[in-house]
Amino acid sequence: MNVVALSGGFGGAKLVRALVETLGGDGVTAVVNVGDDLDFLGVRVSPDLDSVLYALAGVADEARGWGRAGETWNALDTVSTLGGTDWFKLGDRDLGLHLVRTEALRSGEPLSSFTVRAARAFGVTATLLPATDDELRTFLTTPAGTFSFQEWFVARGHRDEVDAVDFRGDASAAPGVLEAIGAADLLLVGPSNPYVSVGPILAVAEIRAAIGARRVPCVAISPLVGGRAVKGPADRMLARLAGGTTPAHVASVYRGLIDALVVDSDDDVSGLDVQPIVTRTLMEDAESRRRVVEAALSVPV
Amino acid sequence: MNVVALSGGFGGAKLVRALVETLGGDGVTAVVNVGDDLDFLGVRVSPDLDSVLYALAGVADEARGWGRAGETWNALDTVSTLGGTDWFKLGDRDLGLHLVRTEALRSGEPLSSFTVRAARAFGVTATLLPATDDELRTFLTTPAGTFSFQEWFVARGHRDEVDAVDFRGDASAAPGVLEAIGAADLLLVGPSNPYVSVGPILAVAEIRAAIGARRVPCVAISPLVGGRAVKGPADRMLARLAGGTTPAHVASVYRGLIDALVVDSDDDVSGLDVQPIVTRTLMEDAESRRRVVEAALSVPV
Repeated sequence: MNVVALSGGFGGAKLVRALVETLGGDGVTAVVNVGDDLDFLGVRVSPDLDSVLYALAGVADEARGWGRAGETWNALDTVSTLGGTDWFKLGDRDLGLHLVRTEALRSGEPLSSFTVRAARAFGVTATLLPATDDELRTFLTTPAGTFSFQEWFVARGHRDEVDAVDFRGDASAAPGVLEAIGAADLLLVGPSNPYVSVGPILAVAEIRAAIGARRVPCVAISPLVGGRAVKGPADRMLARLAGGTTPAHVASVYRGLIDALVVDSDDDVSGLDVQPIVTRTLMEDAESRRRVVEAALSVPV
Repeated sequence: MNVVALSGGFGGAKLVRALVETLGGDGVTAVVNVGDDLDFLGVRVSPDLDSVLYALAGVADEARGWGRAGETWNALDTVSTLGGTDWFKLGDRDLGLHLVRTEALRSGEPLSSFTVRAARAFGVTATLLPATDDELRTFLTTPAGTFSFQEWFVARGHRDEVDAVDFRGDASAAPGVLEAIGAADLLLVGPSNPYVSVGPILAVAEIRAAIGARRVPCVAISPLVGGRAVKGPADRMLARLAGGTTPAHVASVYRGLIDALVVDSDDDVSGLDVQPIVTRTLMEDAESRRRVVEAALSVPV
């Protein structure tokens, strides 16, 4: 069975890990957001790709919710001593990946090719792909001005309300993405932020069109539990941009692209215009991860 | 009293530290070799400048003889996992400096300006200057071929005998270097490798000319103790390129540029054509460092 999951960094990574635990890695392809990639201290950082990679490689810091377990922060400590830019928290283990990726990109290797290599080097059996090899960047319009994703999210602590999300860059799907979608028996949208994690993937016109033209079900997992985001500002953004924080509001962002929505049993499914699949959606351990995957797979393929 | 010391990374750093301990930092200027600088994993590494910086900042790993105390190697560990180039041992704390320097150089700041800033940030009171802001690179001709300094020294473990040392790049003295030499009451040449540590400094024609035209004494400290180098391949290089490993052979490399040589009491000063200053030259602690500085300063200024 071939499954393609659209993924951001936190919820998406958990879903992809759950898929691999349940189905094995061979048929699983994660198509990952790159809209919040950034160049920092001269290295290219791909936070969402790396979160999925670390989750699948078993080296993620699960308690912190980002970055690598057993991480140290000594390079950044020197950067701070020197008065350098240190608002983005680059760990030492993490930094090694960015150094090698930056060299690969500079030498002309596409991000997708590097990502496949990196996943293999970390012993990951699933296929990890960036949505695009092109530079697609997420910008947020807020009352305080327009910011790149990481300026808004990290440097300003996502304190500014978001009035609009825009994507800059003319992006084609990375090699392998459309093929994986075409060969999938099931398409999934991870429980990531619909606007800033899944949105940049769907902003690649070829990917949106391929999902729109699907002949297999597409199932999203709601990022909400009891009307609140498990992590991050998805609930505040849904309230402001979609008018509320129910499953119906989540589904409205994916109009025409999903056939079912896995929703938490604490949420109210009234007004939902796609098939609801109700379960406990919090993925805290292997059992709860399996429960979410089984719910998503329960849609008749 | 103003003192300028030409310095490589290990012996030179010890001498500069000794000078600062004895005279205070205000009048001390270190002019440091950059011939073994390299670009590695996309960052610019200046091993000798950094050794002097770390020694003066009190953050050097004295037992290991290079790099920083309390260092970790987690970034390089990831690089190795990914199959990246990992033959040059970049520690995490060290890497932070390279990241900030690389960004500074890319933005157009000269190396000398960055070095002055970095030294200040680390609380160093002496003046640290690269010999040149231009790219001057040391190459070694050996029976196995021609290598850049770090390829020969680190990647190949300096196992190849050296038939010739060449410097590539048309280099001017960095801002401040000629002024410091002109204002010095005493010029010193650190107990560094004459060919690959001091040689690249003297390969800057303006610096060689300024030292040649000096009106104050220039005193070198021999890197030998009992005919052997304290660290590194200086003895093997002297044997092959100068015909022996006595103080006279050291002085022959500096012909016309020095007036006196501080030599270890285990060495034979016969044939030496500059003034010998005999003492114990090994700098193992504050007392021995002071002894070497006092020997060098004993030359009538």
